[in-house]
Amino acid sequence: MEDQKRKKILCLGLACLDIINVVDKYPEEDTDSRCLSQRWQRGGNASNSCTVLSLLGASTAFMGSLSAGPVADFILEDFQKHHIDVSLVSEHAQCALPASVVISNISTGSRTILHMNRNLPDVTAEDFAKVDLRQFKWIHWEGRNAEEQVKMIQQVVMYNSTLPQHQRITISVEIEKTREPLYQLFPHGDVVFVSKDVARHFGFLTAEAALKGLCSRVKQGAVLICAWAEKGADALGPDGVVLHSDAFPPESLVDTLGAGDTFNSAVIYTLSNGGSLQDALTFGCKVAGSKCGFHGYDGIAEKFTDN
Amino acid sequence: MEDQKRKKILCLGLACLDIINVVDKYPEEDTDSRCLSQRWQRGGNASNSCTVLSLLGASTAFMGSLSAGPVADFILEDFQKHHIDVSLVSEHAQCALPASVVISNISTGSRTILHMNRNLPDVTAEDFAKVDLRQFKWIHWEGRNAEEQVKMIQQVVMYNSTLPQHQRITISVEIEKTREPLYQLFPHGDVVFVSKDVARHFGFLTAEAALKGLCSRVKQGAVLICAWAEKGADALGPDGVVLHSDAFPPESLVDTLGAGDTFNSAVIYTLSNGGSLQDALTFGCKVAGSKCGFHGYDGIAEKFTDN
Repeated sequence: MEDQKRKKILCLGLACLDIINVVDKYPEEDTDSRCLSQRWQRGGNASNSCTVLSLLGASTAFMGSLSAGPVADFILEDFQKHHIDVSLVSEHAQCALPASVVISNISTGSRTILHMNRNLPDVTAEDFAKVDLRQFKWIHWEGRNAEEQVKMIQQVVMYNSTLPQHQRITISVEIEKTREPLYQLFPHGDVVFVSKDVARHFGFLTAEAALKGLCSRVKQGAVLICAWAEKGADALGPDGVVLHSDAFPPESLVDTLGAGDTFNSAVIYTLSNGGSLQDALTFGCKVAGSKCGFHGYDGIAEKFTDN
Repeated sequence: MEDQKRKKILCLGLACLDIINVVDKYPEEDTDSRCLSQRWQRGGNASNSCTVLSLLGASTAFMGSLSAGPVADFILEDFQKHHIDVSLVSEHAQCALPASVVISNISTGSRTILHMNRNLPDVTAEDFAKVDLRQFKWIHWEGRNAEEQVKMIQQVVMYNSTLPQHQRITISVEIEKTREPLYQLFPHGDVVFVSKDVARHFGFLTAEAALKGLCSRVKQGAVLICAWAEKGADALGPDGVVLHSDAFPPESLVDTLGAGDTFNSAVIYTLSNGGSLQDALTFGCKVAGSKCGFHGYDGIAEKFTDN
């Protein structure tokens, strides 16, 4: 058991650069104006989840692809600053400098986002087959190239089948975007995070309704979790009971970017340490709510660890 | 004279990173959209001027301050790629990642710029005093910290006073922004570039009116030049005659970013090679117009050099 505790949590998915420009007036076309501030932030769901897990005190690793060049350097440096293992990151030369530009207007609260196609290959089952699974106790997939991701999960299931229960790797998946192919991930997670967006896409108006409506899609014994912003979050465990936690909003809303990733990580952190589902849910809401009260993630460490 | 020809043109001012997001529709506030493409480009007026001068075939050097870190690495690498001497660049650790965000609309040619305060110290007269002036035939100042810049120019005037006419350094200044302190630069250039913005700020409605109205501010014998976008550019030499060149618009407007810097450089290039003011003006309009027909600057070399 001690050995299992020391093992890492691996997150697979996207790492990208967000350039966040804070303005007090949305720029008119063909003008020059000045930002109040600008910050560069490593983004991407799986990448953010690693950050939060690490800040909470877990050993984590990220697996995904990066471009080569200064953006990749920035991202890698930031991973390392947060003590996240990047030995499974592969660099690709083709798309040198992808960044998403965010114009954040403090006068209206509006967020205007200019996305950039990264043009980078996602991790494949073939890449994943080379990973030494013995170093991990939990693997989390941000739903992206789902067909390949199912194959990776099957590799872990195979690996798990050779081991006693307490040495197995827990498999979690996040289904955030309303894209049909992602829904094939539902039956493959021990823990399945489904977003409010996806829940609403299926016609559900509350987290509880979503859990009851979607639970037939997950495998027997799995946990299905759905966060619903300021309404808190619900979870449905193998016993069929819907658990709930209220949200813990900060005194003032400062930065909601990555709040969902923060929730997921705090849940995974608790469950991976043997905490109950209710504890995980409540902790998820607490950390995510708190995070909305400051920029970025670094404030999490001082608020939620004993260090 | 041969010796003078081999000397370099030094440009002092800003080097920054422009993150250029190409769109076919200017993003409405509070929407998510996708760029057609994104590119990172070394920017800043003086830095752009070095690029164009170098592409036209001049030996150039840049003097200015850079942050440390990946953005600076990108910028330095790009300077070197364009054979621009960066031995006078100083790196500062404090402001790691400044970038200007540019939204370039290919449907209209408009460019919307979100500037970021770089928080970096400008070059001072003390820094400049250490420069070996013998390597330069022309020094161009992008108007910024004007009070210090006047002191630098005085150092060059002093240096020039020890030399015969044909070995002297020509001094040019650019007054682009409508900021009162910059106007003290007017009497200090042998060649003074004043922008349409500044001209209009003074109440002038044409380049010719601006030249006639502002010529009392420049020193005797100086050249005053004012470009007016699609109206071309005018220049007023020591003889008091206003010269004019029409614009040379490209077939389709693709990218106007840096067109002003391109104009200045082509004028400096011509004058520094002994061309007439009319030739310089016409060449400035030709190169700047042509540049608006493609992205970036690299197309200049193939269109305007014999190589």
